[in-house]
Amino acid sequence: MSLNVAFSMGEDVFARIFPPQRRAHLGSSLPVLADEPLTTFRSPLADAVLPGVGVLITGWGAPMVDEAVLDRAPKLRYVIHAGGSVKHHLDAACWARGIEVSTAATANAVPVAEYTVAAILMANKKVLQLNAALKSTRGHINPDAMFPEMGNFEKRVGLVGASRIGRHVIELLKPYALEVVVADPYLDAAVARDLGVTLVELDELASTSDVISLHAPSLASTHNLISERVIGLMKPGATFINTARGELVDQDALIRRLCKQDLYAILDVTTPWDLPADNQLYDLPNVLLTPHAAGSLGTELQRLAVTAIEEANRVAEGGELVHRVAVEDLLLMA
Amino acid sequence: MSLNVAFSMGEDVFARIFPPQRRAHLGSSLPVLADEPLTTFRSPLADAVLPGVGVLITGWGAPMVDEAVLDRAPKLRYVIHAGGSVKHHLDAACWARGIEVSTAATANAVPVAEYTVAAILMANKKVLQLNAALKSTRGHINPDAMFPEMGNFEKRVGLVGASRIGRHVIELLKPYALEVVVADPYLDAAVARDLGVTLVELDELASTSDVISLHAPSLASTHNLISERVIGLMKPGATFINTARGELVDQDALIRRLCKQDLYAILDVTTPWDLPADNQLYDLPNVLLTPHAAGSLGTELQRLAVTAIEEANRVAEGGELVHRVAVEDLLLMA
Repeated sequence: MSLNVAFSMGEDVFARIFPPQRRAHLGSSLPVLADEPLTTFRSPLADAVLPGVGVLITGWGAPMVDEAVLDRAPKLRYVIHAGGSVKHHLDAACWARGIEVSTAATANAVPVAEYTVAAILMANKKVLQLNAALKSTRGHINPDAMFPEMGNFEKRVGLVGASRIGRHVIELLKPYALEVVVADPYLDAAVARDLGVTLVELDELASTSDVISLHAPSLASTHNLISERVIGLMKPGATFINTARGELVDQDALIRRLCKQDLYAILDVTTPWDLPADNQLYDLPNVLLTPHAAGSLGTELQRLAVTAIEEANRVAEGGELVHRVAVEDLLLMA
Repeated sequence: MSLNVAFSMGEDVFARIFPPQRRAHLGSSLPVLADEPLTTFRSPLADAVLPGVGVLITGWGAPMVDEAVLDRAPKLRYVIHAGGSVKHHLDAACWARGIEVSTAATANAVPVAEYTVAAILMANKKVLQLNAALKSTRGHINPDAMFPEMGNFEKRVGLVGASRIGRHVIELLKPYALEVVVADPYLDAAVARDLGVTLVELDELASTSDVISLHAPSLASTHNLISERVIGLMKPGATFINTARGELVDQDALIRRLCKQDLYAILDVTTPWDLPADNQLYDLPNVLLTPHAAGSLGTELQRLAVTAIEEANRVAEGGELVHRVAVEDLLLMA
């Protein structure tokens, strides 16, 4: 079937992730109505495009699709979002009219999981500690004597939360000789077995894991989930990784523990989002800090475009959306 | 078939990688003749053990097995080495007498490949650069503005050498959206296709790869393989990883390029092995240095023991050695 395509998002987002060579991957039955995005629906371009559009590909900065817009787009059948949440630009009316909606949220989880895998392998191998020791010693150092238990073999990795990201970490860790345990109150032990991991309580995870990585959602019930008590359970020499949200952690308690220099931390998120200049996390040698960089950035933004184009090509060839969003999913979106 | 087992290696190596709980994984048809290793063949223990030994498991510090030792071990059928090279402790007489020999060199390649994967993912994601920038800025930084091309998506990784380690890196990178190109004068283009990589010349690899990782052997013909000219071809913003040998690189030329701050390097090996205290590599912020730590260390040493025990169990159950060493392999061993 032939479906006319239009784009709706910020101009900068469009230029960056949907350049002509990317748009060329749209199938021949998906003619593009305009080579520039709709940044608003109140424009001559929107007046020209909306009557014929069958697939609207949206991105960050997309204007709201509401009843009035839908009235002007009688042929619209699919909204495919090259981003995570759709709740800020799609009104519930879209679903009421039977329009099918898709999101690239799965693609967004990939880089976070990849960052986590790199951090786990580095942590067990003591890469950052050895770099610091070598640069301060400026001569021979013996890694095996400094860290007799170093290495990525028969180590335990504890993942807090079998989220979309947590599950992708589990998948990426399969080729390694690492035992993965997971704490997640919503995960069934049988599902855990299918995933190839062991379900444990958070306290057991914290007290027995060599690396602890946080992949839980930010909810009222998960604030300070990594409490002073849980932080106190972590083994000397362990590494704590946070790519989720700062508010899941009692950060003051974490800093107190880190000041003892027997725990390492790799933190992509903190509280507040930008730390004040006098925060100790900037000074601690046993902390690696990155600025909310684990998620999609740089070329990884283009994965969102690729995911959206694949969805469009699938439906144009008579297939079903793989990353379908139901109206009830709106309630759980960030 | 029942085969008596003895161990031959340094006492410290034995204590560390063959503790009783590890030896317990030997099958019931592999009775152990002595709970301590032969550190020499001139001892009452050797006199007691050699006449009945069928499988000798060797490790670092093992004494030489020559004609005289073989004369005292008429039932010896297998020598299984829990390490890499066997040429320093096995005489060619072993093969002449039909003894089958195995090595854990494959297991030794695993941690180097894992270190490399972590380094590649970190390099594309600019993790170390962002950490340094955040700690010096002590406030908001915008990673996307600093590194618009960052990310582990549609990046090119260039591996110099389809060695055992290089091939394991290829395998481990399969789940990622990275294009892998390989330069190796001994690799056939058809084999490269089977590996899922593209065979290119070294110059093309150097000038087009976002990350360049060295996995070539140290031979007369590979000294300064990464010459000043090749270093000059590397793209601004690229990362060079060396877990192989320092002498493969024109280190002075590398330092000159690194001083321009438009290349990043992750170096586990240097020339000399321990850099003098005044070497600039200790000071350059765009260099991560580790002390020959990519290989088997810490718990990873135990992988060698696991590999050896699996080999022993296989032959005891009537199977074939998986990691067999032929006498001609001695010439190529380090």
